[in-house]
Amino acid sequence: MGLLSKPIKTLDDLFVHTLQDIYYAEQQITKALPKMIAKVQDPQLKQALQSHLGETKNQITRLEQVFQMHGQPAKAVTCPAIDGIIDEAEAIMGDASDHEVLDAAALAAAQAVEHYEITRYGTLIAWAKQLGRSDCASVLNQTLGEEKAADLKLTGIAEARVNRVAV
Amino acid sequence: MGLLSKPIKTLDDLFVHTLQDIYYAEQQITKALPKMIAKVQDPQLKQALQSHLGETKNQITRLEQVFQMHGQPAKAVTCPAIDGIIDEAEAIMGDASDHEVLDAAALAAAQAVEHYEITRYGTLIAWAKQLGRSDCASVLNQTLGEEKAADLKLTGIAEARVNRVAV
Repeated sequence: MGLLSKPIKTLDDLFVHTLQDIYYAEQQITKALPKMIAKVQDPQLKQALQSHLGETKNQITRLEQVFQMHGQPAKAVTCPAIDGIIDEAEAIMGDASDHEVLDAAALAAAQAVEHYEITRYGTLIAWAKQLGRSDCASVLNQTLGEEKAADLKLTGIAEARVNRVAV
Repeated sequence: MGLLSKPIKTLDDLFVHTLQDIYYAEQQITKALPKMIAKVQDPQLKQALQSHLGETKNQITRLEQVFQMHGQPAKAVTCPAIDGIIDEAEAIMGDASDHEVLDAAALAAAQAVEHYEITRYGTLIAWAKQLGRSDCASVLNQTLGEEKAADLKLTGIAEARVNRVAV
């Protein structure tokens, strides 16, 4: 049970644990993004990642607000899923000498990160509602909207890359 | 570079590496799902997971077909992201005595798995097209459709749970 900071007995415990998980994930993302931004060449991708870095910092503040609203200290627990996505991207990008490969790997990693966030925020919002905390759900929903928009922007960049090659 | 079976120099290397990553992920999912199915109580959730287990086995066969079409041996490389999602779910479900908590954790884990698969298959399809392999893209697209449908079904179950509590 090394992954859990305390036993999870109730839906409230599960909600708090998942808040801690995504709080950790967002922090890891703010550490990983600047390295990715420095390496990518595609200007649209660079701009999208830069803009997402700014959003991520706001999302961390929002999570701290939700912890506070819920009477819990803001605390992070290791999230091996996000570590796995970031470690794999860094291994590939560390090796890649071709900038097309590097950009493709960065784009794929950024989309995997977005999807992890989308699923976790979606779950947190459902649980907040079940717990009668529509106030927390509403704050978390602002972030979910940003994550979905960021994923759409990245999908647009990915499609533009496919079309550029196919022409 | 322990995460990579060989250095990634080209988009083709990246495509094959990601095929190997999702091939491993699908195999881990077929091992994890029967344990989750045995534990969950919600009949709709149990049925959705059971049906997804059947789909996952077909998806593995489809991946083997894509490896063959691409002239590569079907091979798995460890995917720490999927291991992280499954390990976390098993830790929570191993501890949970309340079946509502257990079902909620299983549902969240299943959705996280779906989102991981959706992002990876989406990426693989884009890369297959860039590589001029619309035949591989077409096979992978069948799986992507199933993953999106499975996620929608799980979202429906999650929303029904919220509404049941809210009534």
